[in-house]
Amino acid sequence: MASSSTFSGSDLEAYNAARAALINEDRALRRDRHATTTSDEEQLQLEAQADLRVRAIRAEEAATIWTQEHENIPHPFPGMEFLTGREIIVKTKLFEILSRMPKGALLHCHLDATVNAQVLLKLALEQPALHVRVAARITHSTIGAVLPEFRALPRNEYSLNAPGITDELYQSDSWVSLANARANFDVALGGPEGFDRWVIGSMMINPTEAYKTHNTIKKVEWSARIWEKFQSTFIVSTGLIRFAPIFPEYIRQFFRSSIEDGISYVEARINFLYKHMVGEDGLENIPHRDWLIMFDDVLNEVKVDMKAQGREDEFIGARIIYSTIRFITPEELEWYLEDCIELKKEFPHLIAGFDLVGDENELKPLIDYMEPLLRFRQRQKEEGVDIPFIFHAGETLGDGTPADNNLFDAILLGTKRIGHGYSLVKHPKLIETCRQKGIAVEVCPISNEILVLVASELTGLSTLGQLARDSIEHSTLEEEEKQHALHAWERQWQKFISGLLE
Amino acid sequence: MASSSTFSGSDLEAYNAARAALINEDRALRRDRHATTTSDEEQLQLEAQADLRVRAIRAEEAATIWTQEHENIPHPFPGMEFLTGREIIVKTKLFEILSRMPKGALLHCHLDATVNAQVLLKLALEQPALHVRVAARITHSTIGAVLPEFRALPRNEYSLNAPGITDELYQSDSWVSLANARANFDVALGGPEGFDRWVIGSMMINPTEAYKTHNTIKKVEWSARIWEKFQSTFIVSTGLIRFAPIFPEYIRQFFRSSIEDGISYVEARINFLYKHMVGEDGLENIPHRDWLIMFDDVLNEVKVDMKAQGREDEFIGARIIYSTIRFITPEELEWYLEDCIELKKEFPHLIAGFDLVGDENELKPLIDYMEPLLRFRQRQKEEGVDIPFIFHAGETLGDGTPADNNLFDAILLGTKRIGHGYSLVKHPKLIETCRQKGIAVEVCPISNEILVLVASELTGLSTLGQLARDSIEHSTLEEEEKQHALHAWERQWQKFISGLLE
Repeated sequence: MASSSTFSGSDLEAYNAARAALINEDRALRRDRHATTTSDEEQLQLEAQADLRVRAIRAEEAATIWTQEHENIPHPFPGMEFLTGREIIVKTKLFEILSRMPKGALLHCHLDATVNAQVLLKLALEQPALHVRVAARITHSTIGAVLPEFRALPRNEYSLNAPGITDELYQSDSWVSLANARANFDVALGGPEGFDRWVIGSMMINPTEAYKTHNTIKKVEWSARIWEKFQSTFIVSTGLIRFAPIFPEYIRQFFRSSIEDGISYVEARINFLYKHMVGEDGLENIPHRDWLIMFDDVLNEVKVDMKAQGREDEFIGARIIYSTIRFITPEELEWYLEDCIELKKEFPHLIAGFDLVGDENELKPLIDYMEPLLRFRQRQKEEGVDIPFIFHAGETLGDGTPADNNLFDAILLGTKRIGHGYSLVKHPKLIETCRQKGIAVEVCPISNEILVLVASELTGLSTLGQLARDSIEHSTLEEEEKQHALHAWERQWQKFISGLLE
Repeated sequence: MASSSTFSGSDLEAYNAARAALINEDRALRRDRHATTTSDEEQLQLEAQADLRVRAIRAEEAATIWTQEHENIPHPFPGMEFLTGREIIVKTKLFEILSRMPKGALLHCHLDATVNAQVLLKLALEQPALHVRVAARITHSTIGAVLPEFRALPRNEYSLNAPGITDELYQSDSWVSLANARANFDVALGGPEGFDRWVIGSMMINPTEAYKTHNTIKKVEWSARIWEKFQSTFIVSTGLIRFAPIFPEYIRQFFRSSIEDGISYVEARINFLYKHMVGEDGLENIPHRDWLIMFDDVLNEVKVDMKAQGREDEFIGARIIYSTIRFITPEELEWYLEDCIELKKEFPHLIAGFDLVGDENELKPLIDYMEPLLRFRQRQKEEGVDIPFIFHAGETLGDGTPADNNLFDAILLGTKRIGHGYSLVKHPKLIETCRQKGIAVEVCPISNEILVLVASELTGLSTLGQLARDSIEHSTLEEEEKQHALHAWERQWQKFISGLLE
């Protein structure tokens, strides 16, 4: 009766049965269906109890913490803009609980934006080789617009006693050692702490930029403005991260903070645009191969350390999605694709896939790279490797635009997952294809906040468990590794559930 | 090859063919597919030329009128909030062209909000029986919050010389004749013109209310706030419209302005909540049957007049969707359903369907009315009439809430169309059902502006033609009437296309 989807009788009881069946049929098609992670009856009971407890906390906090006025945050509510509400969110019991939840795999992140800016600055300040320069002397009027550029210099080029970047004698674009620039930062601009605030601010997006400055102009232009800011944060941080003495420590911090957040496996997009990073000697001479060796070393070290603590279930491993940026020419792409194949051959356990990143609305669409991309698949066959595409696509409000059309190319090229892909809602055939082929969409609720986040009555603890399991399911792990990761996750999940009920 | 949706070869030419096929397959599933309204080759050519001309105008205006700064409208752009950009929109050539376009059927409108508030006030001022009262004397401080209440009084209760509503002697809630209230409106508040502004303002939603006051609070609460304002505009205007000497003139203005907008057929939701309207004698004694007689008389008069002008293709007719509000009890609903059946029997050509209106997030869900609604279908069989449900449902941001669940009930009850229904995106099974059963979704882009309007590269003149034809297709007209309406529309469309090319 439900499957015909119209109820023809007039009997209320029969109607209610048909209604329940239709609701069930509908929910079964949703990825966030109420799933359970076990068939063990006792565990099921526990999970249901824990779910009730979390719902009660959610309801209580909705009625208390979210109804009070908070300084600087007018009219807070649970679904408000993340960056504005963050300060309240992190104080909730719900946040504390979910921080501890075992989350499975992190499938979408850009390495250069994973570590807290404050931590990165701290790492940088330990490096005497690091220097900073600006296009214009930093004053009250330029501090909001001028960005720092960082790089490590060879020892014979160190500039320890040059005028600081706020000094009247500072010459635009001249390098100043980081320590000097910080120590001599104009007291009127906050001195060394003012320097820290300015550097950290240049690597972060604040709520005003996210929701006002970059958002009030035009909905369509908003995307372009916020992308500019995204890009500038990457540009600033790259100068610090792509330095051999910092890179391994950065990776280590990334793994550590992921583990803290309950993530047990990572596939990180690393941007390989620069062909070399800067070595300890200040020369740009460390090739991609060495980046992977550093990555692998830190990975092994962290795994050994976790095992020694009896916490091996909490960290299964990490892989790299080799990425470059959509502004290169198709000819330049050839080089990166060959490089990627070489790396995959040497580090088969590290290279998870290939992606092209950057603002789809402004940069080249996938179709422009079709020749090298098709050839890439051919070359993989010849070399006996398998490097799935894991493309960003359809991260756009456009309809029928080149950025929107990227979805067709990503899918035709057999992409394993789609980064963002929210433009999919405009394409019934492509949605069907993703469903049939099991192509996962990497959704970042905060990055996609433009679509307005709204709490659902249907999501509960088991939905979150299902999402975590899905994340492992859609990773590039081999079947055996996947089973291992799933089992480790299940053990963590059971601990988490019991913990909630204590 | 395209149907498998992954391209396996490495040949660029074959790839491009597979890509074109997949894009085509995807677009074919979209309702806004590029359709043509004729198979006549010559007409097709004309339509394509007209489409190019309109696209050129759109592109030109995007680069000119939309890039200039306008007083009071910072950063205008074509997809901006409608009420803010309206002033610019109405000056564009594109708007002028689309105003003239034959649009087919208007399937979603609430009668009480169809006629320009200024016109309604003008009609009201011609009626000496009409009086106004306010809950608090109108002063500088109350004018922004206090709403007028209107009603016609019997002649022996006329209050021509009482103190005006801004007068210090005014007693709260006492009736003052409209003419008196207007003539004696405090000069400091703008005098008679200040009165007009206040009354008109009480019946309209201004951009600040729509996008700021009612919108900045909370996304979720926004809906409730703006609904309050919607409701208050209805409450104010109802006192003027549900008055027998005004009602027919209001209907006439509604038909006239619809015709001006290129609409040739209307299915209007009329709220039958009040069982009587006020007669010329000031007594509340005009039953629903008389409302329909008035409606029918005006309808026939306008049709005769249009025919006399040789414009009969421009107005095919109008019908009523009998509506009441979701705050009544199920027992009360029984009365309205029987009333609706009685009216359908006497005016089969006027009653198009039945609906329940009002804020779904706050008022009763359909499931609460299931007994009378199921019985209604039974009673129709007994009486030999057919009154389709044409329900508002899923006009909500909720997920799994009662308002969201209304979609299940509307569809199980066999609704012919769904009003708004944007919550459908959360329900894969229901989307499929709507597609299979041809259930149209009545989408009002402005009412649904909360979802952000974005221009599509795919929509052109033929898309609009397709939407117009769809509107007639999904009306409640009988097959023969429908064919008549479609043919009349086709003639208008051809005229429109030729007009564009002159």
